[in-house]
Amino acid sequence: MQLLHETRRLAYAATHAIALGLFGAGVSAQPSHPLDGLSAEELSNAIAILRKDGYLTDDSRFPLIELLEPDKEAVLAWKSGDPVPRQVRVVVKQGSDTHRGLVDLGADTVVQWDAAAGESMIMLEEFLGAMDLALSHPAFAAALGKRKLTAEDVFCLPLTAGNFGVEEEAGRRIMKVPCYVLPSGSNFYARPIEGLFAVVDLNAGEVMEVVDTGVLPLPEQPWGYTEAEIEGRHGALRPETNPARLHQPDGANFKLHGSRIEWDMWRFHYRVDKRPGVVVSLIQAKDRDRWRSVLYQAHLSEVFVPYMDPSEGWYWRTYMDSGEYGFGLFLSPLREGVDCPDYALYLPAVLHQDNGQPLEIPSAICIFERNIGDPAWRHFEIFAQSETEFVPAEGRPWTELVLRSASEVGNYDYLIDYVFQQDGKIRIMVGSTGLDAVKGVASTSMGHPGAAEDTQYGTLIAPHLVAPNHDHFFNFRLDFDIDGTDNSFMRTGLVAAELPDDSLRRSLWTTQTVTPATELDARYRVNPETPAMYHVMNTNQQSGLGHHPGYMVSPLGSVAYSPLDSRNDPPIKRNAYIDFTHWVTPYDPLQRYAGGEYAFQSDGSDTLSEWVKAERPIVNTDIVNWYTMGFHHIPHMEDWPVMSTMWKGVVLAPFNFFDHNPAITSRLPKTE
Amino acid sequence: MQLLHETRRLAYAATHAIALGLFGAGVSAQPSHPLDGLSAEELSNAIAILRKDGYLTDDSRFPLIELLEPDKEAVLAWKSGDPVPRQVRVVVKQGSDTHRGLVDLGADTVVQWDAAAGESMIMLEEFLGAMDLALSHPAFAAALGKRKLTAEDVFCLPLTAGNFGVEEEAGRRIMKVPCYVLPSGSNFYARPIEGLFAVVDLNAGEVMEVVDTGVLPLPEQPWGYTEAEIEGRHGALRPETNPARLHQPDGANFKLHGSRIEWDMWRFHYRVDKRPGVVVSLIQAKDRDRWRSVLYQAHLSEVFVPYMDPSEGWYWRTYMDSGEYGFGLFLSPLREGVDCPDYALYLPAVLHQDNGQPLEIPSAICIFERNIGDPAWRHFEIFAQSETEFVPAEGRPWTELVLRSASEVGNYDYLIDYVFQQDGKIRIMVGSTGLDAVKGVASTSMGHPGAAEDTQYGTLIAPHLVAPNHDHFFNFRLDFDIDGTDNSFMRTGLVAAELPDDSLRRSLWTTQTVTPATELDARYRVNPETPAMYHVMNTNQQSGLGHHPGYMVSPLGSVAYSPLDSRNDPPIKRNAYIDFTHWVTPYDPLQRYAGGEYAFQSDGSDTLSEWVKAERPIVNTDIVNWYTMGFHHIPHMEDWPVMSTMWKGVVLAPFNFFDHNPAITSRLPKTE
Repeated sequence: MQLLHETRRLAYAATHAIALGLFGAGVSAQPSHPLDGLSAEELSNAIAILRKDGYLTDDSRFPLIELLEPDKEAVLAWKSGDPVPRQVRVVVKQGSDTHRGLVDLGADTVVQWDAAAGESMIMLEEFLGAMDLALSHPAFAAALGKRKLTAEDVFCLPLTAGNFGVEEEAGRRIMKVPCYVLPSGSNFYARPIEGLFAVVDLNAGEVMEVVDTGVLPLPEQPWGYTEAEIEGRHGALRPETNPARLHQPDGANFKLHGSRIEWDMWRFHYRVDKRPGVVVSLIQAKDRDRWRSVLYQAHLSEVFVPYMDPSEGWYWRTYMDSGEYGFGLFLSPLREGVDCPDYALYLPAVLHQDNGQPLEIPSAICIFERNIGDPAWRHFEIFAQSETEFVPAEGRPWTELVLRSASEVGNYDYLIDYVFQQDGKIRIMVGSTGLDAVKGVASTSMGHPGAAEDTQYGTLIAPHLVAPNHDHFFNFRLDFDIDGTDNSFMRTGLVAAELPDDSLRRSLWTTQTVTPATELDARYRVNPETPAMYHVMNTNQQSGLGHHPGYMVSPLGSVAYSPLDSRNDPPIKRNAYIDFTHWVTPYDPLQRYAGGEYAFQSDGSDTLSEWVKAERPIVNTDIVNWYTMGFHHIPHMEDWPVMSTMWKGVVLAPFNFFDHNPAITSRLPKTE
Repeated sequence: MQLLHETRRLAYAATHAIALGLFGAGVSAQPSHPLDGLSAEELSNAIAILRKDGYLTDDSRFPLIELLEPDKEAVLAWKSGDPVPRQVRVVVKQGSDTHRGLVDLGADTVVQWDAAAGESMIMLEEFLGAMDLALSHPAFAAALGKRKLTAEDVFCLPLTAGNFGVEEEAGRRIMKVPCYVLPSGSNFYARPIEGLFAVVDLNAGEVMEVVDTGVLPLPEQPWGYTEAEIEGRHGALRPETNPARLHQPDGANFKLHGSRIEWDMWRFHYRVDKRPGVVVSLIQAKDRDRWRSVLYQAHLSEVFVPYMDPSEGWYWRTYMDSGEYGFGLFLSPLREGVDCPDYALYLPAVLHQDNGQPLEIPSAICIFERNIGDPAWRHFEIFAQSETEFVPAEGRPWTELVLRSASEVGNYDYLIDYVFQQDGKIRIMVGSTGLDAVKGVASTSMGHPGAAEDTQYGTLIAPHLVAPNHDHFFNFRLDFDIDGTDNSFMRTGLVAAELPDDSLRRSLWTTQTVTPATELDARYRVNPETPAMYHVMNTNQQSGLGHHPGYMVSPLGSVAYSPLDSRNDPPIKRNAYIDFTHWVTPYDPLQRYAGGEYAFQSDGSDTLSEWVKAERPIVNTDIVNWYTMGFHHIPHMEDWPVMSTMWKGVVLAPFNFFDHNPAITSRLPKTE
């Protein structure tokens, strides 16, 4: 067991380092707004109340402690200085049992306590425990021995295994545990011990099975990516150059009041939740002197990453990175000058450890303005020129505010940006980077006799390493409240216009607007073959010229559909929201996640695609737009050892909301 | 006629101001490379040779004088110090006749002289002449009078009118000339004189018809967009703020040798041609110590902007902005700190006037590096953390080189960026901005009795102004030469994999690669319903691991198909390249423009969609990929008075070309 210690130390480290405040110290302020995340003190209070009332046992662990938002109506009515109502949603794991509690901090009572309707999110202790179980199992040790390895040579990456309806797994809490050779350098994933993994029941604390499909040669190269490692192995570093970068010498223009941010024509509230990561609320745009509501709330709803390799060690790799692992829990400190400009404001996130103690992640969020050297708009007017006067192009710099976080889930890193523009648009962007998941193979080149078989479901990207094909999907929950809560969703399609027989023009398109009546009608696949604009509109209000104010929701290169079967394939069924880009449901505060409240080992019965079968009406009522973005990844050598950031997004653009382009009131830059 | 003078002065101004060197002075250097654009001296020499040999008359005008590129083979064999072969392609207009000549500067001879096979590009003299003809026509003056206007109150925007097979227009050279009230401020398009236009025959120098469909009320608001005008009319300017912008205090890292640019892992040649604007050639990427060819050339091939209003004054508005007007001719000076960062290098373009004299457009191009505050890649490694050491996220700043130009065609402005990334990718981006084309209507609001009819084909965006629906399409000619001239084009589709009956996973996708044999097979519509990657590959070469080196060509949110009829509708037939995103042809130096060599009043017979009917083979030979990007525009109030820049693009990404991600050899930023 001594030998294991070193291995485990590595894996424990992050938790401990963060919990011990090694990364930085800080005590979160008391809440000043009903939507603020829980403070360290509130976390403690919630647990104290549960303990006082006898709900907890010595082995109680907390997969989730988070704010239960007050009713939307109460939040909208709330004013600064009013008392801040605070209720806490708690998921408690006691042995195999999972409870769901509701604690009222103000009333000092437990309001609700019942059995959770599903398996809770993974806890770090379980993650580390699974590694421990695998490595201490004799059959696993023997399998390592066959590979001339011992437990102290390796570390493991316990993975969620989905739910394939396997009888032996029913009623258990399963992770599958493949391992890697401990690296000499920075890259932890370059040397997978392929063909070997343990199946662990977290509840029973036991290894159910050790799967060993045969010994494969271990990749040799370390593939580190630090400057020192690159210099040594992959050819010379680039020469030093003169930086061309952003700066803001005179300081930021945005204001932070607690968790509320105000910048230019925007104001909004932010917090961090363990599961979705950043939650942005009460997004309002200033129209002359009036603050107008655009969204009540926007946040990540689920992430789905299915791999496309049917082998025993891979078919189940169909991760729900948000619902199973937690995009908030895995927020990673942002690095100045790399992840964000050095002048950005870096803010911590307060979450909780498995034992309920606060967990502060330093620099979990950065906020910055930037003008990236592009024009927000411009026009050069040739008619304005005269023989005596040169009239330069009129235009304004493109300036925007970025609210950024980055979640690291295993080998992958996901940046999530909420970007606020001066023309009334909001972009929500996901930047995917980090390391590709790789599979060990015998082949060292495409000329190898086994190469065709080894690369049937992926690409050989380094000797002995295949990166299997996969998809990434991200669903965002967009609770629009445009000028009030009652909104409608509309599809404006482009259709061939009818033309008189004597028209010289023989084809042109016109528009046809449809307002779907129920949530089942409001599922749309975005497709250039059937071009359309998708809007959320408030038909009760009038904006300029008698139009109804609206926002258009358009992909930024992010539409992807896979030839996958959401009826019969278990992992796709759990994530059937990927079948459509747009979904619309009536607002329901309990429906926050397209993959369901309990994603871990879920069967898909509590998900967006099931909810909409109720066919609830969605016209002129409080509605939520669920937007799925995604991309397919056929890996290639340039993805290794680290992938270039791939940005995919959605843009929310005002559509007859403002009287004119809000960006015309921007100023020309001052000369420095 | 005195009254006209002031009107014309405005329109003439830009030409003169530029020709007179008001914007800046400069003499273009002598060519130092066979692909360099023509210098001022070469332009003069070409004309002198034509004159000496008796080809020119007193009224000869020059719609086009440009370099005829030497054979690709000769260019590739050329070395610095070798003689620079120079041949000049000339299109000469003499009265109604259009000739095409070829002049050899070195041999001092006219090599070729024949009749042009179509109508030449519009010349500025014709443009201004058309305005003059309209305004001096008595019927037009009378029509203005009905509107209580005189010629001195207005200016006109002569427009290409397409080719609708109208008998009376056959053999003529037609423009249609609508006019606007001269503005008091910056916005020249806010007060269209709707319902009135002249049809002009440029060859005959006569007005064929004055069309007056009835008097409409004139819009009143000037809708200027300068700071002073905004301050006065649209509400207060935004407060002054602290800039957050790019700077490069220590100077640029790229090197300019004549028209060749070297930066980081890239080198390429650029020039400006009158029709396509910027032409980038000989794009090579450095792979360790080896320069490897990626593209022989890339440039805009055609632009198509069809409006969707069937009325008499609008049905023919189906512009080919590149082939009819010229993206090079209409390059506009870039403004420091607005169009590009202030530290960018601003370069002039040398083109020619109608009389053959040089025309220098100052600051027509800007070149700059930038790091926009995003990571090129990053990974935070939780396993690397220990109790004693915090290991921050590893990553590198996203640094890129931008080569930008902006063409202003009437009310619209198009930015075109060639962006070179440190990971081996090239982005080609089109940023559309400027003013929406607007149509005068009676309606002042959606409550107006005529509003439904007025907005049948567009959106009321200001009182008395409807912005008609339209599309924008851009076709780029991408002459890939990946590690040599012989390349193949491939489509790698995602298809449902066959799974054994006992597979727990019931669906996953695998890939299927098709290499189209002929150009007719290589037309592809990109569509998320049939997901695929499109590659150009050199199957004769091996890159790392025995892969073939390739580049993948992927849309950046730019796929658009309209329900338009390219078989029967004349303007769409002329631009049938919009039917497919990808086209592939064998390399033919005479096939440079998807809309044909002569776009003005063309019938579509000499266009890409016709060429491919030859079914030439395209496997393992010198091929060209033609990429169409586009978007639909349903206008809204926020588009007025100026539109936010809308970026659409395509990314060329190395696919098993490099052994690993080229961005891993970048350095961390130095601390300032």
